[in-house]
Amino acid sequence: MIQTPYLLFLGDAPDQLAAKVAQGIRDWRPENAVGQLRLDGCGADVGLADMSLEEGLAAGARTLVIGVANRGGVISAAWKAVLIEALEKGFDLASGLHNLLRNEDDLMSAANIYGGTLHDVRVPSTAFPIANGVKRSGKRCLAVGTDCSAGKMYTGLAMDAEMRERGIKATFRPTGQTGILITGHGVPLDAVVADFMAGAVEALTPDNDPDHWDLIEGQGSLFHVSFSGVTMALIHGGQPDALILSHEPTRTHMRGLPDYGVPSLEALRDMVLPIARIANPAAEIVGISVNTQKLGEDAAMDYLQKTEARMGLPTVDPFRQGAGRLVDALAGI
Amino acid sequence: MIQTPYLLFLGDAPDQLAAKVAQGIRDWRPENAVGQLRLDGCGADVGLADMSLEEGLAAGARTLVIGVANRGGVISAAWKAVLIEALEKGFDLASGLHNLLRNEDDLMSAANIYGGTLHDVRVPSTAFPIANGVKRSGKRCLAVGTDCSAGKMYTGLAMDAEMRERGIKATFRPTGQTGILITGHGVPLDAVVADFMAGAVEALTPDNDPDHWDLIEGQGSLFHVSFSGVTMALIHGGQPDALILSHEPTRTHMRGLPDYGVPSLEALRDMVLPIARIANPAAEIVGISVNTQKLGEDAAMDYLQKTEARMGLPTVDPFRQGAGRLVDALAGI
Repeated sequence: MIQTPYLLFLGDAPDQLAAKVAQGIRDWRPENAVGQLRLDGCGADVGLADMSLEEGLAAGARTLVIGVANRGGVISAAWKAVLIEALEKGFDLASGLHNLLRNEDDLMSAANIYGGTLHDVRVPSTAFPIANGVKRSGKRCLAVGTDCSAGKMYTGLAMDAEMRERGIKATFRPTGQTGILITGHGVPLDAVVADFMAGAVEALTPDNDPDHWDLIEGQGSLFHVSFSGVTMALIHGGQPDALILSHEPTRTHMRGLPDYGVPSLEALRDMVLPIARIANPAAEIVGISVNTQKLGEDAAMDYLQKTEARMGLPTVDPFRQGAGRLVDALAGI
Repeated sequence: MIQTPYLLFLGDAPDQLAAKVAQGIRDWRPENAVGQLRLDGCGADVGLADMSLEEGLAAGARTLVIGVANRGGVISAAWKAVLIEALEKGFDLASGLHNLLRNEDDLMSAANIYGGTLHDVRVPSTAFPIANGVKRSGKRCLAVGTDCSAGKMYTGLAMDAEMRERGIKATFRPTGQTGILITGHGVPLDAVVADFMAGAVEALTPDNDPDHWDLIEGQGSLFHVSFSGVTMALIHGGQPDALILSHEPTRTHMRGLPDYGVPSLEALRDMVLPIARIANPAAEIVGISVNTQKLGEDAAMDYLQKTEARMGLPTVDPFRQGAGRLVDALAGI
C-alpha cells in the first residue's frame, strides 16, 4: 500500500506523453493527488496546481510519486536533489522506473535516516503462495486482448469508474506499474517468479461480498508468444466470471513480433473460453472493448456496429462512448 | 554448465526414494557419475561403487552432486562436514535443494577460499531476454500433460536415449532441477521471472541443425491452474514441431487441487493444438505417453490399446515398452 494523497513529480518531462503515469493518476484517481511538482523546462502539465514540496505537505501529501519516464534509464542529478529533499521533509517516494530507487545509495541512505519508504512498484513487495484454485466469493471481470496494449487497463478503469458512480461495489485490481501507481496498490505480475504468478493473482483478488466485482487489469495476450504465460496465470488465478475481449483494429502485426499476425476476435473468443472455464465453469464473455483511437469517428462507429452484429456481443470503445454498456452486461452474471 | 563427471552424495538417505535424483543420474547419464558417497545409516544404493572424496577425485570426479532430499529443509552438520571437505579438496558442489547452498555462510566461505563453484539449480544462473518469437532452425518435441507429474520428464529422457541409440541428433533440454542435475545444464523454468519465461525457453533451445531434435522437458499442465502459465510459456517459447500428450489414467483429481477433475486426452488435444500453432503453424500431436505404473500388466496393455484406437495416435508407456514408437512418430515431421 502506497500512502495517499500524492504530490506528482513531473520533473523535466519533455512532453505530455512522458508524464502519462501522472496523467493516469489525474484522470482516474484525482482524489489521490494534491498537486504537481515541475522542474524548469518541464513540457508536461496534468492540470493540477503547481506546488513545491512544502506546499504539497501543507496540502496533505504523503508520497511523492514519480509520474514521468526518465531519459536513458538514469535518475539525473536534478531529480536526485528533489527526491532527497522530499525524503528529508518526510515524504515517501513511489516509482515505476526500470532503475529502482532502492538501488540508488543516496536515496536509500536518506530513506533510512528520515524514515521514509521507497516504493519500487516494478518489483513485488511481498512473497506469494502457489495458487490453490479454491473458488472465492464475489465476482471478477478480466479483459483479455487479441494483442498487448489493446486497451485492457483503460477498459478496467473505465468500468470501475462507471460502477462506482452507479453505487455498484467494485475494485480495480492493478497488475502493472501504472495501475499500481494510480490506485496505490496491486501486483506487478510480470515481475513475479513463474511458480507464484497464479498465486499472486489469487492474493490480489481475495474473497469478497457476493455482489462485489473485482475489475482485474489484464496483461499480454494468449496470442502474444512473449507474454502468453502471464495472461494464462491471470485467467487461472483470477478465475473470472466475466471476460471482456479487447482489440485494436488497425494493427498489422502483434506488438514487437513482426512475423505474427493479430488474431480475430472469433479466434480469441474460441481460445479463451475453454481456458477460463477450467478455473471457473461459469465464465462467460460479456462484451467487447475496441480501441478505435486510430480511426475517425465515422469509421470507428461503423467498425463497432459491424463487430457487434458479427459477434453478437455489446461492443464499445469506452474512451469514445463510456463503459456503460459493458457494465450493463455484467448484470446478467 | 555443471562440470562432469560427478561423485553422487547420497548422505544419510533414509530410503531409495529419497535418492531419486541420484537414481535419475545413474539411469539416464551413467557416464556422468564415477561413484556414490554414502554416510553411516544410508538406506539408499544406486548401484555405483562406494567412494570417498579422495577416491572420487582419483576417478576423475569434478563435482559433488547432492543426489538426495534433505529432511526438514536443513543441511545437517553431518552433511556440512562432507560438503566443506569436498570444497577443500577442489570439488564444485551442485544441489537442487530448496534451501540454497549459497545461503550457507560456511559453504560460501569455503567456496571463496578454495575456488569452488556452488550450483543451486533451483535458481536461474543467468538473466534471459524477452522472447522474440523468431522461428528457429532444427526440430523440437515437447510433452504436455493432462496433469502435473504425469511422466513428461521420463518420456523426454526415454526418447532422447532411444534417439541417441539410433544415431539421431538429439538433445534433452531440462526445465526442472532433477533434469538439470541429470544432464548438467538447463533452465529451472518455475524460478524464472514471469516476463522472461518464454525467452528462457528460446535460449534453452537455440538454432540447430535442420535434422536435430530438442526434447524439451515439459512442466505443469494447461489444465493445472497453479502452473498453467509456465506450461504456456514452454509451448510458446519452445515452438514445438511435435507434441506428445502425457497422461496418468488412475488419478481422480488434479495434483494438489482436490476440486479439479483430470481432463480427457481429447480435451488436452483440442486445447493444446491451437495454442501450439500460434508459435509454430506446423505443430502436430504425434503420440501419447501413458504412465501406467499403478496398473497391472494386463490392465495397462488394455488401456494402451483402447486409447490408441480411440485417439488414433501411437500410445505407449515408455517405461514398460520403451519410447521406440514415439521416436518412430517423429519421422514424419
